[in-house]
Amino acid sequence: MSVTDVPGFVAAGVTCGIKPSGNPDLALVATADGASVSAAGVFTSNKMTAAPVLVCREHLAATGGQAAAVVLNSGNANAATGAQGMADARQMCKETAAALGVAPEEVLVCSTGLIGYVLPMDKVLDGIAAAAQGLTPDAGLQAAEAIMTTDTVPKQALIAGDGFTVGGMAKGAAMLEPNMATMLAVLVTDAAADPHTLQQALRKGVAGTFNTLTVDGAESTNDTVLILANGQAGPVESDALTEAVAAACESLTLQMADDAEGSTKTVFLQVTGAASDAEAAKAARDTANCQLVKCSWYGQDPYWGRIASEMGAAGVAFDNTKLTIAYGPHVVYDHGEPAHPPELAQYMTGRRLDLHVDLGMGDGSARIITTDLTHAYIDENMGTS
Amino acid sequence: MSVTDVPGFVAAGVTCGIKPSGNPDLALVATADGASVSAAGVFTSNKMTAAPVLVCREHLAATGGQAAAVVLNSGNANAATGAQGMADARQMCKETAAALGVAPEEVLVCSTGLIGYVLPMDKVLDGIAAAAQGLTPDAGLQAAEAIMTTDTVPKQALIAGDGFTVGGMAKGAAMLEPNMATMLAVLVTDAAADPHTLQQALRKGVAGTFNTLTVDGAESTNDTVLILANGQAGPVESDALTEAVAAACESLTLQMADDAEGSTKTVFLQVTGAASDAEAAKAARDTANCQLVKCSWYGQDPYWGRIASEMGAAGVAFDNTKLTIAYGPHVVYDHGEPAHPPELAQYMTGRRLDLHVDLGMGDGSARIITTDLTHAYIDENMGTS
Repeated sequence: MSVTDVPGFVAAGVTCGIKPSGNPDLALVATADGASVSAAGVFTSNKMTAAPVLVCREHLAATGGQAAAVVLNSGNANAATGAQGMADARQMCKETAAALGVAPEEVLVCSTGLIGYVLPMDKVLDGIAAAAQGLTPDAGLQAAEAIMTTDTVPKQALIAGDGFTVGGMAKGAAMLEPNMATMLAVLVTDAAADPHTLQQALRKGVAGTFNTLTVDGAESTNDTVLILANGQAGPVESDALTEAVAAACESLTLQMADDAEGSTKTVFLQVTGAASDAEAAKAARDTANCQLVKCSWYGQDPYWGRIASEMGAAGVAFDNTKLTIAYGPHVVYDHGEPAHPPELAQYMTGRRLDLHVDLGMGDGSARIITTDLTHAYIDENMGTS
Repeated sequence: MSVTDVPGFVAAGVTCGIKPSGNPDLALVATADGASVSAAGVFTSNKMTAAPVLVCREHLAATGGQAAAVVLNSGNANAATGAQGMADARQMCKETAAALGVAPEEVLVCSTGLIGYVLPMDKVLDGIAAAAQGLTPDAGLQAAEAIMTTDTVPKQALIAGDGFTVGGMAKGAAMLEPNMATMLAVLVTDAAADPHTLQQALRKGVAGTFNTLTVDGAESTNDTVLILANGQAGPVESDALTEAVAAACESLTLQMADDAEGSTKTVFLQVTGAASDAEAAKAARDTANCQLVKCSWYGQDPYWGRIASEMGAAGVAFDNTKLTIAYGPHVVYDHGEPAHPPELAQYMTGRRLDLHVDLGMGDGSARIITTDLTHAYIDENMGTS
C-alpha cells in the first residue's frame, strides 16, 4: 500500500548523505511514462515560507497544474536560506527534469529538516541522479522511508475508489498544526481529473484531516501536500475522488498522530455547542496546544480543571454554568458542577482518549486530533545535532 | 522586605491542612488597626473565573474600593466548584471579617492550587481563626510562604518611594501568561491614594510587568493582584506611586520568571520593527509560547530557525528579507540571510538570554519575559497528586 501501488507511477528512495545518520534522505515520485499529468498542491500559510514551497507554487502556476515528478529531501528544510536557497530549490527541479527528460516547471520539490542551513547541493545532485536511475514501480516504501525525519515509521496509504485508487506517503512527527498539519505528503491517483477539480478535491480532503491535527501548535515553514493524477483509470465522479483523497489524508493523519514526537497518547477532542464552528475550532485548538493539558494526558491524570480553564481563556462565547466536559463516557463537569468519577483513572490509561467538551452556547462544533507532551518530546527537540 | 515592612500592616501565615504536604497554606494580610482603607484589584480575564475572583470583584464594587484585609489559601483554587465554591469564598470573607471586627465586604479573598475541588471548609475556617489570632507586624515572610504552590522560594518586594513604601508578596510558578501573568500578588503601601488613583497605578504597574511574563501560555482561572493603601505616609504624587507600584511588580515578575516550574532559562524577548505594538506583542507571545523554541533554550541549542518560523506564522505583517534575529550581540539572521556565529554556543549557556527580533516593518515593539520547557516542568505537571 504505497504510491507505487497506483498504476502508472514509479518511485525511488536513496541515501545521498544530507543526514549525518546515513539514513535515506532523497526521494523521487514520478509518472512511469514521463508524461506530465494533472497536479495540485496545498501549502503552509507560514509567511516564513521555505524556498521549495515558493518554487512549487511558481511551477504549478506556470504549468497551469501539470507535473511529471516530485523530488523530496529530508534532513534539511531549505528554509531561511536566502537567495541561495531559492537557487538550490530551482536547481533540484532542473536536475530532476533533465534526468527525466521533462521541463523544470514540470517538477515539484519538497524539503524537510533543519531550518537555516544551505543544502549540500553536491550530495543532493548525486542523489537526484541516483534516484532518477533507480525509479521502479515497487519502490514506494523506499520513497516513504527517505522522507522520514524524526518519524519512527514510514507513513503510507492506499484507498480503493470505484475503479480507481489513491495512494499516498507522508512524513510528520512534530511541528504539526492545522493550516497545515503535515510536514510533507505526496498523493497519486490513476483517476482522471482536470487540475481545478483535483485542487478542489485536495483542498477538501486536507481541511477535514491534516488541518485537524495539532501536535505542538507550531506551523512549519515547509508544509506541503501534493497530488498527481495520471488519468489511466479514466474519469471519476468528483465527489468520489474527493472522498477517496480525504480517506487517504485521514489515514496518513492518524499515522502521524500516533507517531508524533515522543507521544504516548492520541487525543480526539470534540468541541460542540460553540457559538460558531470557528469558535469551536479556536477553543479546541487552544486546549489541544496547552502544555499543562498535554502534561496531564502524559501523566494519565484525570485532571480536567485545566481543560475548563482553557475553554474559559479561549476568547469564545462562554458561560461556566453551561459547560460540560466528558472523557469517553465519564462526565467530569456537568453544567458548572464538578464531578470526579472514580472510573476515570482507568479510562486515562488508554492509548487513545476521547474528550468531549460542550460549551452549551450554540451549534458550532469542531474536531481536533492531538497528542500529549512527554519527556521524549523534549529529548527530541532540545538539540538539533 | 515584605508586606509587613510597610508601616501599618500586619500579616500571618499558618498551616490549616489543605495541602497534603503539611506545608503552610493559609495567609492573612490586614491593616494593623483594623481600618478599612483604599483598595484596588486587577484580575484574570479568563471567563472560567474562580469563585474568589468573583467575590473580590463584588466586594470592591460594594465598598467603592475599600478593604481591611486579604485572606488567601494555597493548595486549592476554588475554581470550577459550582455554587458551593461561591458560598465557600463568601464564607471565607465572612469568617475573616468576624474575627477582625469588620464587614464581610471589607475582606478580599484569593485561592490558588487545584481546579475542580471543593474547599475543605472546616480546615479553612480553623486556619482563618488561627491566622487572625496570629497577625503580627513581622510575619510578612510567613504569609508569602503560605501562598506558595510549586514555587520553590517565597517572592517578596519592598520599594522605597519618596517618603512612602510599597511592599508585596506573590506566588507564581506556572500558568503564567500576560493578562495576567501572575497567580496571586498582594501589594500594600502607606501612601495615601483614593481608590480610583490606586486602581490606575495598579493597572499601569501590572501592564508593563506581570502582563509581559508568559511561562506556558495558559491563563489561570484565579490570577489576582490586589493593593491596599493605608495613607499613613500622607498623599504622594500619582506618578511616583505608579512608579513604585510598577517597580514592586517588576521585582516580583522577575522572581516568578526565575522560579518558573522547572525552568533553567529566563529569556527576555524584545520584538521591534513590527507594524504595531499589538503585532509585536502577538509575535513575541507566540514565539515565547512555542514548545519547540522553549525546548531549544533548554538544550542551549543555538537553533534560531524555529524563531524565524514562529515569526512567519504569527499572522503579523512580515517580509522574510527584512527579518533580523540576534541572541545578545550575535546576529543569526540578517535581513533574510542565515548566519551561524560560533560564539553563539557559549552565549546559550547563560542563565538569562536576551533575544532580539526586528521585523523591519514599522515602529511597533514589545517585551516578553519567558522561560524554557524542561523535563522538570513535565514532572511537575504530569500529575496532581
